[in-house]
Amino acid sequence: MTVTTSPFDADKLNEECAVFGIYGSSEAAVLTALGLHALQHRGQEATGMVSFDGVHFRAGRGLGHVSENFSAGSEKLKKLVGHSAIGHNRYSTTGESETRNIQPFLAELAFGQFALAHNGNLTNAERLHRSLVETGSLFQSTTDTESIIHLVARSHQNEPTERIKEALMQIEGAYALVCLIDDKMIGMRDALGIRPLVLGKLDDAYVLASETCAFDIIGAEYIRDIEAGEMVIIDKDGVQSHKIGKAKQSRFCVFEYIYFARPDSNLEGRSVYKARKEIGAVLAKESPVAADIVIPVPDSGVPAALGYAEAAHIPFDLGIIRNHYVGRTFIQPTQADRSSGVMMKHNANADLVKDKDIILVDDSIVRGTTSRKIVKMMRDAGAKSVHMRIASPPTTNPCFYGVDTPEKEKLMAARMTVDEIAKEIGADSLAFISLDGLYQAMGESARNNDSPQFCDACFTGEYPIEKIGSSAYERSDDGIA
Amino acid sequence: MTVTTSPFDADKLNEECAVFGIYGSSEAAVLTALGLHALQHRGQEATGMVSFDGVHFRAGRGLGHVSENFSAGSEKLKKLVGHSAIGHNRYSTTGESETRNIQPFLAELAFGQFALAHNGNLTNAERLHRSLVETGSLFQSTTDTESIIHLVARSHQNEPTERIKEALMQIEGAYALVCLIDDKMIGMRDALGIRPLVLGKLDDAYVLASETCAFDIIGAEYIRDIEAGEMVIIDKDGVQSHKIGKAKQSRFCVFEYIYFARPDSNLEGRSVYKARKEIGAVLAKESPVAADIVIPVPDSGVPAALGYAEAAHIPFDLGIIRNHYVGRTFIQPTQADRSSGVMMKHNANADLVKDKDIILVDDSIVRGTTSRKIVKMMRDAGAKSVHMRIASPPTTNPCFYGVDTPEKEKLMAARMTVDEIAKEIGADSLAFISLDGLYQAMGESARNNDSPQFCDACFTGEYPIEKIGSSAYERSDDGIA
Amino acid sequence: MTVTTSPFDADKLNEECAVFGIYGSSEAAVLTALGLHALQHRGQEATGMVSFDGVHFRAGRGLGHVSENFSAGSEKLKKLVGHSAIGHNRYSTTGESETRNIQPFLAELAFGQFALAHNGNLTNAERLHRSLVETGSLFQSTTDTESIIHLVARSHQNEPTERIKEALMQIEGAYALVCLIDDKMIGMRDALGIRPLVLGKLDDAYVLASETCAFDIIGAEYIRDIEAGEMVIIDKDGVQSHKIGKAKQSRFCVFEYIYFARPDSNLEGRSVYKARKEIGAVLAKESPVAADIVIPVPDSGVPAALGYAEAAHIPFDLGIIRNHYVGRTFIQPTQADRSSGVMMKHNANADLVKDKDIILVDDSIVRGTTSRKIVKMMRDAGAKSVHMRIASPPTTNPCFYGVDTPEKEKLMAARMTVDEIAKEIGADSLAFISLDGLYQAMGESARNNDSPQFCDACFTGEYPIEKIGSSAYERSDDGIA
Amino acid sequence: MTVTTSPFDADKLNEECAVFGIYGSSEAAVLTALGLHALQHRGQEATGMVSFDGVHFRAGRGLGHVSENFSAGSEKLKKLVGHSAIGHNRYSTTGESETRNIQPFLAELAFGQFALAHNGNLTNAERLHRSLVETGSLFQSTTDTESIIHLVARSHQNEPTERIKEALMQIEGAYALVCLIDDKMIGMRDALGIRPLVLGKLDDAYVLASETCAFDIIGAEYIRDIEAGEMVIIDKDGVQSHKIGKAKQSRFCVFEYIYFARPDSNLEGRSVYKARKEIGAVLAKESPVAADIVIPVPDSGVPAALGYAEAAHIPFDLGIIRNHYVGRTFIQPTQADRSSGVMMKHNANADLVKDKDIILVDDSIVRGTTSRKIVKMMRDAGAKSVHMRIASPPTTNPCFYGVDTPEKEKLMAARMTVDEIAKEIGADSLAFISLDGLYQAMGESARNNDSPQFCDACFTGEYPIEKIGSSAYERSDDGIA
Repeated sequence: MTVTTSPFDADKLNEECAVFGIYGSSEAAVLTALGLHALQHRGQEATGMVSFDGVHFRAGRGLGHVSENFSAGSEKLKKLVGHSAIGHNRYSTTGESETRNIQPFLAELAFGQFALAHNGNLTNAERLHRSLVETGSLFQSTTDTESIIHLVARSHQNEPTERIKEALMQIEGAYALVCLIDDKMIGMRDALGIRPLVLGKLDDAYVLASETCAFDIIGAEYIRDIEAGEMVIIDKDGVQSHKIGKAKQSRFCVFEYIYFARPDSNLEGRSVYKARKEIGAVLAKESPVAADIVIPVPDSGVPAALGYAEAAHIPFDLGIIRNHYVGRTFIQPTQADRSSGVMMKHNANADLVKDKDIILVDDSIVRGTTSRKIVKMMRDAGAKSVHMRIASPPTTNPCFYGVDTPEKEKLMAARMTVDEIAKEIGADSLAFISLDGLYQAMGESARNNDSPQFCDACFTGEYPIEKIGSSAYERSDDGIA
Repeated sequence: MTVTTSPFDADKLNEECAVFGIYGSSEAAVLTALGLHALQHRGQEATGMVSFDGVHFRAGRGLGHVSENFSAGSEKLKKLVGHSAIGHNRYSTTGESETRNIQPFLAELAFGQFALAHNGNLTNAERLHRSLVETGSLFQSTTDTESIIHLVARSHQNEPTERIKEALMQIEGAYALVCLIDDKMIGMRDALGIRPLVLGKLDDAYVLASETCAFDIIGAEYIRDIEAGEMVIIDKDGVQSHKIGKAKQSRFCVFEYIYFARPDSNLEGRSVYKARKEIGAVLAKESPVAADIVIPVPDSGVPAALGYAEAAHIPFDLGIIRNHYVGRTFIQPTQADRSSGVMMKHNANADLVKDKDIILVDDSIVRGTTSRKIVKMMRDAGAKSVHMRIASPPTTNPCFYGVDTPEKEKLMAARMTVDEIAKEIGADSLAFISLDGLYQAMGESARNNDSPQFCDACFTGEYPIEKIGSSAYERSDDGIA
Repeated sequence: MTVTTSPFDADKLNEECAVFGIYGSSEAAVLTALGLHALQHRGQEATGMVSFDGVHFRAGRGLGHVSENFSAGSEKLKKLVGHSAIGHNRYSTTGESETRNIQPFLAELAFGQFALAHNGNLTNAERLHRSLVETGSLFQSTTDTESIIHLVARSHQNEPTERIKEALMQIEGAYALVCLIDDKMIGMRDALGIRPLVLGKLDDAYVLASETCAFDIIGAEYIRDIEAGEMVIIDKDGVQSHKIGKAKQSRFCVFEYIYFARPDSNLEGRSVYKARKEIGAVLAKESPVAADIVIPVPDSGVPAALGYAEAAHIPFDLGIIRNHYVGRTFIQPTQADRSSGVMMKHNANADLVKDKDIILVDDSIVRGTTSRKIVKMMRDAGAKSVHMRIASPPTTNPCFYGVDTPEKEKLMAARMTVDEIAKEIGADSLAFISLDGLYQAMGESARNNDSPQFCDACFTGEYPIEKIGSSAYERSDDGIA
Repeated sequence: MTVTTSPFDADKLNEECAVFGIYGSSEAAVLTALGLHALQHRGQEATGMVSFDGVHFRAGRGLGHVSENFSAGSEKLKKLVGHSAIGHNRYSTTGESETRNIQPFLAELAFGQFALAHNGNLTNAERLHRSLVETGSLFQSTTDTESIIHLVARSHQNEPTERIKEALMQIEGAYALVCLIDDKMIGMRDALGIRPLVLGKLDDAYVLASETCAFDIIGAEYIRDIEAGEMVIIDKDGVQSHKIGKAKQSRFCVFEYIYFARPDSNLEGRSVYKARKEIGAVLAKESPVAADIVIPVPDSGVPAALGYAEAAHIPFDLGIIRNHYVGRTFIQPTQADRSSGVMMKHNANADLVKDKDIILVDDSIVRGTTSRKIVKMMRDAGAKSVHMRIASPPTTNPCFYGVDTPEKEKLMAARMTVDEIAKEIGADSLAFISLDGLYQAMGESARNNDSPQFCDACFTGEYPIEKIGSSAYERSDDGIA
C-alpha cells in the first residue's frame, strides 16, 4: 500500500476517487473546488478540473490536495472560467504518481471536446486496452478510464450522447462517471450502482457529486441519488434520465457506510453517521463485555464507539489522543520498538486508561499492523484488560471495484481465525460484527443470500461482477509519455 | 491575527512557541524532531534545531512544520550530528515570516558558541533593545529573544553559566529557555513559572520539553517540572539545579489547561485532559440547561463537552463533523453568506441535530466570529434551541507572556456583557464558567485573591509582571538583514 | 515571436529543433545529453530523451536547457539506462510551453513501444490531423509530429519498419527524424533533404545528429550525411539504407550555413565557418566601402565580418562588446529611450569607435528592430559613418519547414526597398549579398534557377513543397490534456 | 576553487565583488539592477540591494544572477522603493553559499539604519573580529565586511559620517565601499586605491560603480574616478569630498586591465580594451614567432590576440568555437579522456586549424589545467605547431585584496619555469609578457621599482599592505545563524 498523506490510518482500505460536477453557475470552478475539498477523504494524491464556458474547455490539475491546487486567486483556478465544470480527486494505487493520470481527462474528438471523471474500476479494462491498441489507438495514461474515451472516439454514432451510450455498453465494472461535452453535463452509474453518485441543485444550477457532504459545503440541496444503470443528461433544458442496459437489483458498496463516506453524508437514503452508530449498537448487543470505558480508535471508530457505549451503558471516553499534525511517518529512531510509527499520530491518555478494563472500537482490521500497536499502547499506558470490537465483518477478500486493497494473503482475516487475530494483536478479547448484524444495522432484517442488497464481496468473496484479466490491472508501461 | 495552518480554529488564542532539548543520546536530532512534532500545536510557522557533537554546533531551520523540515533522510536532518540538540517551534505574531527569526538562535561568543530557544515573552524587551543598540550591539532578528544573547555576550563573567545567570538577572517576563553551550544543556524558567518546562530521562539521556507529550513520543520518562525561577545545568555528570533570584509564589498559566496544552500532557502534576473534563463538569453544575444532546465544538471542546455531558446526564453526540483536510480557508464563493469559511472545516450532522435542543460546548470565546457561524450552522440544520457553554471565564484582557492575543478592543467579552454576547452569536442561552469554578476544577477550593495560584490575567487583568514599553513589542524594523 | 533565453538575438530566424541518437554504447544517455548540449543552439525551450535497455523504454523530459535537466547524478538522467537513446531539443513556436509537447514522444503500439524525435515541419499536418481524429484517434500534443505516430499505429503492415515506411509515404514536408523501436535506431530525412542529419561512429556505437558539432563533443567520427529521402536502420548488425519514395534533387536549407548551424559544424561537405567567411568575402567584393574598421554584430556576424575585413583589407575590430550574462531583457527603466533593451546585451566600445568610419557586418535582417538600435548605439558612441553589410539576401518570405519566422508583413525586407531599410535603420549605406553571390560563396557558379541547389524560399518565395492548410499550423486546442 | 556559473573559465583568477549606488532618481532600484547586471562579471554567486525612500530602508537579496532576482515586476524589485539604492554582486570564495553573507548588509544602529556594500578584502579582519567578539559583538555573517559595521556601531562620535570615518581609520586592506545612511550615499576607496570606484551622473542623480560599463547601460555620464583614500558624501546638496588618513601613492590593481574589468570600461583614465590590445602588441614584439594564424582563447583572450595579430601581421582567426550555452560542466562520460570538460565549452574549428602553425593567445595561466586541454584540442584538430602567448607575466603569488586566488602551491608559475610550463601544457613554445612590457603597455616607460605605479603583487610578491592573521581569512564558523 502506498504512503498516504491522509490522517486516516495507513492500515485501511481506501477509496480511489471522488467526482463532482456543476452545470449552470457563474461560479462553477470555485464551487467545484469546494465540492472536491469536501470529498478530499476519497482521494488525496491529485486533483483536477475541466471547465467549459460555452466555447472553450479548460483544464487544471496537480498533485496534492485541492486546497494546494485551487486556492482563491491562484492562476490555476482563475483560468477555469465558464458556467460548468467537473472535477476529480485521485487516490493513487501505483507507487509513482504521474501527472498524466490525473483526471478529468480532456480529449478532442471528432465532434468536439470531451471531458471525463471516473470513480470506480472497469473489470474488463485489460481486454479493452489490448484490443484498442491493436487497432491503432494510442494510450496516454495508464488508467482504465482512458479506454472509455477511446470507445467514445471510435463510436460510429452521430450524436455525442449516443456515442457515450455505445461506449458504456462495452465497459464492465463499477463506475460513477461525470462528463462534459459541448454544452451538456452527463452523470452515469454502473448497472449495480456500486459506487455512489448524487444529484443536487443550487439555485438554477445542477450538481453531481460522490457524496452529499459536497452539497452542504456549497449550500446545494439534495434531490436524489442517481440510480443504478442510469445516465442523466443535464443541459439548459434540465435533467433527462436514460437507462443503460437492462435493469438489475442494485448492490451498493456497504463499506461506504462502514468507512469510506464522510459521516455527515447521506447515501441511498441513509445517514452514514447513524448507520455507524447503529453498527456499534448491534455490535454491543452481539458481543458484550464488562469494562470501565469504551474508547474509539480515532477518528473513524468514533461513531461506532458512541453507539456501542450508549447501547452497553458504559462510559465513552478518549483514551487515545490524536496529534492534529500527522501525516506520513516522516522519521523514526533506530531503536524502533521504543517509538513505533503509531506514536506519530496517537498517544495514550495514560491518566485515564491506567488500571481500567477498556473496550477499543475500530471500524475494520485490514492488515492488523495498527491494531497490534494500539493495543500495546493501551497496555503500556496501564490498561488492565483490552477488548477489541470491530464495526465490520472480517475483511477477507480484495475489492476490484475502485477500492485500494492489499492482496488476499495480506488481509489478516483471510489468514487467521478471530482467536488467532486476537492473540496476534494482543487483545484480551476480539469480536467482529456478524454479516447479518451488519445488514440489520442497515435496516434490513437479514442478508438476502440469493440476491444480496449490498456489495459485500470484501467480506464474503461473492463478487457481483466477474474480473477479466489480471487482478491488479493498472498498466505501468508507458503510453504516449 | 495571522493566517494559521493549524486545524485549530483561527478564532483562538495561540501559544507562541515550543522548546525541546536532549543531552546524551546518539540519536539526539531524530529524537528532537519527534519531540518537536509532538509539540507542533504550540507553533506551526517555523521550526529549527541546533545540535552539538562535542566539537561543532550545527543549525537547521525552515518555515513550516517539523515533518516538512526534518524528515528521515533529509539533508537538513542528516547534518545535525551530535549527542545533544535543542529545538524550537515558532508561532508567528507578525505578518511576515522571516527566516532570521527562526529559533534556536546560534551565536559565536567569546567563550564559544551559544544556542538558545525561548518560549515566552520578555516584558522589558524594548528597553533592553534600545540600550543595547545605543552601546553598539547589532540586532539580527526582530525578536525579544535576541536581547538575551547580547546580554550573555556582554557579560564580564568568566564562566559561561555565570554569564547566562547574569543575563537572566536583567530580563523580565515569562520564559522557558533551553540552551546549549560547550558541552552543557541548560533549562531555565522565569520566576513565576508562567510557561511550562518539564524534565525527563531516556536511558542515559536527559530531556527538556514544553510538555510531557513530547516525552511519550520518544518513550522518555517524566522526572519533574522545572521549578519557577530554576536553572538546571545538564552535563555528563548529571543535573545540577540553581535558583535565579529570590523565590516567589509560582503562577502557572491557567490557559495551558484550558486550551494550549495537548490533552495527553501532564503539567504541574495535573492531567490536562482530566482538568478539561472537570471544567466541563463544574460548568454543568454552574449552568445547567434542559437539552437533548451535548455537542462539542471540535476539536478543543471535546473533553469539556464529555465532562459536561457526564455531569448533566445528557447524551454526548457529534453534531458537528470536522473535515480532516482543513487548513486555511483557501477559497470562497462570492455569495459568501451561502458558504461561510467555517464550512471548509465543519459541517452540521443534520440528521442528528434536526428538531433537537442542543448544548454546544467550546473552550473559549475570543473574537466570537466562529461562535456566531457555528450557532447559525446548527440552526440551519434544524436545531430547536442552541445553548452555548464555555469552558473558561470571559477572555477580557490580552496576554503579554508569550501568547498571541488580539488587542483588548477586539476581545468580544471585553466589549459586551454575557447577554449581549449571547444575542450577538445567536444562542438561546450562554454561560461561561466562573473564575472560582475554574480554580475548583483545578483542585483549589477557590482563587486566592491575595496571591493567586495561577496567572489568569487574560480573565482578570491582574498582570503578575508589569509590561515596560509598547504593548505589542515585536520590532518590525530591520536589524542586520 | 516568443521570449527567448538564447544569447542569440531575438530578432533572428530560429531553428525549431535538434535531434540526436546513439545505438550501442554503455553510456548512451550521458552521450546523448552531451550531444544535445552541443546542439542547444537549435532549441532552448525544452529537452527530452528516451532510452532503451533491450527490455524497457524510459523517458525523461523538462523545460529549459539540457544542462538543467540532465546533469550528472540527476534522477532524470540516472533512470535513463540502456545501450541506446534518442534525444531532442525543442524551440517553442507557441506562446505557452507545454510539457506534453516535449519530444521525443514515446508511444505504446501493438508491436511494442515507439519513440520519435523530429526536426522540421509537416506541410500536410492539418489534413492528417483532421482525418485521424475523425476516425477515432486521440491526440495528446499540439504538434504535427504526433500524426506520424498515429500513422504508424494505424498501419496494417506487420513489420515495424514497414509500418514506419508506410507512414512516411503519407507525410509531406521537411523532416529529420530519429526513432527507436524494439532494438533498432532509425534515421530518416525528407525527400529534399531540407533539414540536416548526419551519421557518425564512436567505437562500436552509431550516432545520428542534426550537426557534426555533436560528434566532436563526444569524440565520435563523422561518417556521412544521411541522404535526402533516405531511411537508415541501425541495429546490432550495422547500418542498412533504404530509399523512401523516388529520388529527387536535394535542396538543403541554405540558411543553415548563414545562421542556424554552429560554425564548427560541417554540413553536406561544407565547413559552416568557412562558408560564412566566404560569404563575407563575396560581400566585400560586391559591396565595398571605404572605412576605418570592420565591426561584427556579435556573435553571429563574426565569421562574415572576418571574411569581409580580410577581403577588403580593412582592420577587423570589436566595436561592440557583448555582456556574457545576457538572456532575456529582464528589466527596463520607464524612460526607455535612455537604455534600450539592446544595452542589456551589447555596449559600444566607445574609445575605439569614436570618430571612425565603420562597417557593421550582420548575418541577416528579419524585423530590423535590433539593427536600428545597434546603428544608433554606434552613432551615440561617436562613429563618423556607419555602413551596414548583411551576409544574406533580403529575407522576404516565411519558412514552413521547421523554422520560426514572423509573418511576411513583419519581415522588413518584404515591406521595404534596400534604400528604405537603410534609412529606417539609420545607416549611411546598406548592402545585402546577392542571391548569386550567396550561391558562389557556397561553391556553386551560380543559382540553377530551373532546379536550385538549395532551398532558398525565405529569399525567393520559391517553395519546393506546397503548404496544405493554414499557414501557421500548430494547434492550440487541447488534445487529451 | 568553487564551481562557477560564469562563462569565464574556471581556471582564472576571479574578482570577488561589484558595488553600485545611485542617489536622487525616481527609478533608483531599477537602475541599480541594470548597473549590477552590467557588473555581473565581477560576481555571480549572489546579488542584493538596499533602497531608501527618505523614511524606510528596504533590502532584497538572493543567490544567482541579477536577472534572476530583480526582473521587472518581481516582488523583490517592487518593494525596493525610494530615490536612492545601493547594490552588490558577490563572488563566493567559500564552498557553501549562504544567504546571510549576501550584501549589502543593513544594520540598525543607534543613529538609524546603515547599509553597506564592499568590494575588496580587509587585511586585519581576523584581528578586528576577535577583538570585537571578545567585547560582546555578535557576528551574523562570516565576512570581513561585517567588522566595518560593528566598528561604526561602536564609535563614540555623534555624527554618522564621523563614525564611519572613525571606523575606516581602524580597517586595513583593499576596499571600494558604497553605503547609505539617513539621506546620504557615501563612497570610499582605500588609501592605495587598489579596487576601482567611479563617479557618474544621470540627470540630477549621482551614481557610484565599480566600472564605467555600469554607467553606459543606464545612460549615465562618467565624471571621475574616486581617488585613493577619498570619501565622497553625496546628498541633496551634491558631492562633498573628504580625505581619510594621509595621502599615499596610488597603486591600482593592474589585473583589472588584464582580465577582471569589462573591455568596454574605462578605469583610471585608460580604456580596458585598448590596454589589452596594447599588451598583445607589446607581447608580439617581445616574443615573435612565425605562424599561419593567431587564435584567441575565447573570450578573454580576444583583444590581446587582435593586438598581437595586428602587430605581428599574422591573420587573426577563430580556431576555437565557444558554445554559447556553457556553464558548469554538468556531465562527463566515464571514459573521460575522450571528452574532457573543456569540450562542454569549446570546440576546435578543425577545418581551419588543420595543418597550420598557430599562435594561441590567452590572458593568463593560473593552474594551467585549461591550457593543457586547449593545446591538446588544437593538436587533435590537426595543428602542425602550437605557440602559446600569455598577455600577463607569470602569476606566482596569491592576492589578499579581494580576488579569489588558489594557494601559491597551486599556481603553475610558482612551481615551474616557463620551459617546464611549456612542456607540461604541450606547447611548442610559450612566452609571457615581461613585467616592464606590461607597464609599457599601460603607458609607463617602465615599472618604478621604488614606488610601483600599480599593485602587481600577484606577479612580484611585493604586497603593498601587510596581511595580518591567517592567509585565507573567511571564517567558516557560525555567527548568529
